[in-house]
Amino acid sequence: MRMSNIIAKKRYGKKLTREEIHFFIKGVTEEKIPTYQTSALLMAIVFQGMDKDEIAALTEAMMHSGDVVDLSSIKGITVDKHSTGGVGDKTSLVIGPLVASCGAKLAKMSGRGLGHTGGTLDKLESIPNMSIDIEIDDFVKQVNDIGLAIIGQTADLVPADKILYALRDVTATVESIPLIASSIMSKKLASGTDTILLDVKFGSGAFMKTIEEATKLAQTMVEIGDSLNRDTKAMLTNMNQPLGLAIGNNLEVIEAIETLRGGGPDDLVEICLTAVAIMLYQAKIVPSIEKGRELAESKIADGSALEKLREMVIAQGGDPTYIDGPEKFPIAQFIVPIVASESGYVEEIDSLEVGVAGVHLGAGRETIEDAIDPSAGIVLNKKVGSEVSVGDILAHVHTNRQLDEITQILENVKNAFKISKNHVETPPVVYKVIE
Amino acid sequence: MRMSNIIAKKRYGKKLTREEIHFFIKGVTEEKIPTYQTSALLMAIVFQGMDKDEIAALTEAMMHSGDVVDLSSIKGITVDKHSTGGVGDKTSLVIGPLVASCGAKLAKMSGRGLGHTGGTLDKLESIPNMSIDIEIDDFVKQVNDIGLAIIGQTADLVPADKILYALRDVTATVESIPLIASSIMSKKLASGTDTILLDVKFGSGAFMKTIEEATKLAQTMVEIGDSLNRDTKAMLTNMNQPLGLAIGNNLEVIEAIETLRGGGPDDLVEICLTAVAIMLYQAKIVPSIEKGRELAESKIADGSALEKLREMVIAQGGDPTYIDGPEKFPIAQFIVPIVASESGYVEEIDSLEVGVAGVHLGAGRETIEDAIDPSAGIVLNKKVGSEVSVGDILAHVHTNRQLDEITQILENVKNAFKISKNHVETPPVVYKVIE
Repeated sequence: MRMSNIIAKKRYGKKLTREEIHFFIKGVTEEKIPTYQTSALLMAIVFQGMDKDEIAALTEAMMHSGDVVDLSSIKGITVDKHSTGGVGDKTSLVIGPLVASCGAKLAKMSGRGLGHTGGTLDKLESIPNMSIDIEIDDFVKQVNDIGLAIIGQTADLVPADKILYALRDVTATVESIPLIASSIMSKKLASGTDTILLDVKFGSGAFMKTIEEATKLAQTMVEIGDSLNRDTKAMLTNMNQPLGLAIGNNLEVIEAIETLRGGGPDDLVEICLTAVAIMLYQAKIVPSIEKGRELAESKIADGSALEKLREMVIAQGGDPTYIDGPEKFPIAQFIVPIVASESGYVEEIDSLEVGVAGVHLGAGRETIEDAIDPSAGIVLNKKVGSEVSVGDILAHVHTNRQLDEITQILENVKNAFKISKNHVETPPVVYKVIE
Repeated sequence: MRMSNIIAKKRYGKKLTREEIHFFIKGVTEEKIPTYQTSALLMAIVFQGMDKDEIAALTEAMMHSGDVVDLSSIKGITVDKHSTGGVGDKTSLVIGPLVASCGAKLAKMSGRGLGHTGGTLDKLESIPNMSIDIEIDDFVKQVNDIGLAIIGQTADLVPADKILYALRDVTATVESIPLIASSIMSKKLASGTDTILLDVKFGSGAFMKTIEEATKLAQTMVEIGDSLNRDTKAMLTNMNQPLGLAIGNNLEVIEAIETLRGGGPDDLVEICLTAVAIMLYQAKIVPSIEKGRELAESKIADGSALEKLREMVIAQGGDPTYIDGPEKFPIAQFIVPIVASESGYVEEIDSLEVGVAGVHLGAGRETIEDAIDPSAGIVLNKKVGSEVSVGDILAHVHTNRQLDEITQILENVKNAFKISKNHVETPPVVYKVIE
């Protein structure tokens, strides 16, 4: 088998065989295929696409390029949720405890934030002494004991994806449904969970700018799951504004605790309840998604969801008094109001702009070495559909930096708000569920 | 300027600026751009193409990536002809002396054969003591003295093309009109000639399989010439059978001498007269292509074309007695007839098949290190349109290899002849001239 022939086949729009795709991924992983051939094939895939069989074979080959986590010793059905990345997305902190409090098993390996979207691990580490470096045996034991663990990736999952992603990043081949879908799904499949719920975001702050693209990506990933016999469902959610009100690590943990207590912003509550309802149905704990939602609501109402977060924090060495009293989280030195200079209705809040502002304030990192300021961030005071008058506060910026250093950031946060003279409806957060 | 942005622009079908294209070629030449980015851009060009301005900028940037030969000290207009490569193509050996005998100046740097098409240098070196390694000053002097020199490439012409071609060869990006056109034209432009005539071949033995593709390539190259103020014309010629009757170095030189003497196969004579007529018109020696043809015919008839070949051989140290008596060229040990086993008319002679058979007999080389057997080759006895009866000789194979080693080659030569039951017309060799 010759790589140049494989590239030629794809260039001319022919279907690659399972053997050719496995040869490619093995060669990439073992660094036997020169990167110039890999990037040429990636670009040919961008233009010619891949069919269902090819994408399934690519995902399977990538999944097996490294460790595959064995969760079979966890009793019951393990569930997991994956988000394609959004601004203000603290759903894992809510969904994890909530789904576990309903009886499902969540054994989650999570990532750090990079770029304009935050990472669950960084948020968890805002809780003092919370450990996310846990050996796989202890991880499995914790899930068996309390139904829930969220840790950093310890195993060498999908090394082929690391190599391919680094190449795609510098060869303009990131945006490609087969390549994105196989990248996400290979990692989820390698992480060993029985069921997968995908939260595919669309809009200004997401990879997929339109609902059509997001639908296509979601359908492709659900098809991959079907092909590889893993129960996979997807929901399409709106990222034309940040999710919830808080952006920044401490701020988001506080918002997640509020939500588990029965408060929280409407859109965050809605997305979490929808996700948990689907996951409970996937775990066969409830006979329908509707019943799943009822069960989830009851576990928030009776306090067991919040209690489950407390259990996880204790199990992972964290200080539970922060869960009991979130006012203990340190607050930034300056809390700066962003004031509206025009009246009307909020039409859009540019998530990318807000996310990047958050990174510059210290809430996220641009490179993997950057340190995080856990108290930095932004809290929205208005959301899409809100009526605004001149002088109203649109948001508060939380920062430990001197104000004269961040005038541009303050300006950018303000400009992220698009104000319309016409009435704007509050948009739904969950647009569609793909089963 | 960032290479990843340039790749992204082309990926999304946007037009690259002159500056971006020059940045790319400079980076390739200086090996500052990683090959994985180069191959990704090449594949994006395959799919998105390039417009006239982009192709002209690419050609110009490549042309200036190395030496540009200065032929300005040659008196009069220098002409050159470039063929896209064919089997049995000995036209340079005929056209060079013929056009010079009519008063034009031909200062040609030629290449060696690789793959299934032969190289002019290898053919010239069949003449004992003939030197093709000549310094540029002596080269210019020879052209001023006798109007003609054909030598090996001494200058470092278009190093960018060498790098790009090596990459294209292993990344399935060879077949692309902008990439082929810029590769050919950059080398011709760098070689310093005032006018360029392109012989673009189509058919089984050519890069371009169809007349439509060949027309597009020819038009693209003529446009490049126009954009860069170099008089460029093209002719489209048939490569659905080898050109002339002889394939192999000594055999082709003998056929070229016959043609300069006023004999030679009809298709070879036709292509050479057409080419020379156009070149003489380009050199402003004649007022029309028709007058050019008349002049060329007269120079064959009065012996001055053959005399010019003799002068060139003497000037380059070769033995002219081989020109006077071509029977001096060594003949292969075995001359094996290929006999027809069916009756009808020759419909096609697969040039690729015949060319590859010639290489395997020793007439060409598969890798640059291979040695050549100058007497090996194939002489066709039938051409497309010929009537054939069972038992007729289709061709003779000339070989110094033992016959039991070459049974497959003999079989392949026979199979290259497609015999039809229906009458087949002799096809024209020159289909179209693009001015």
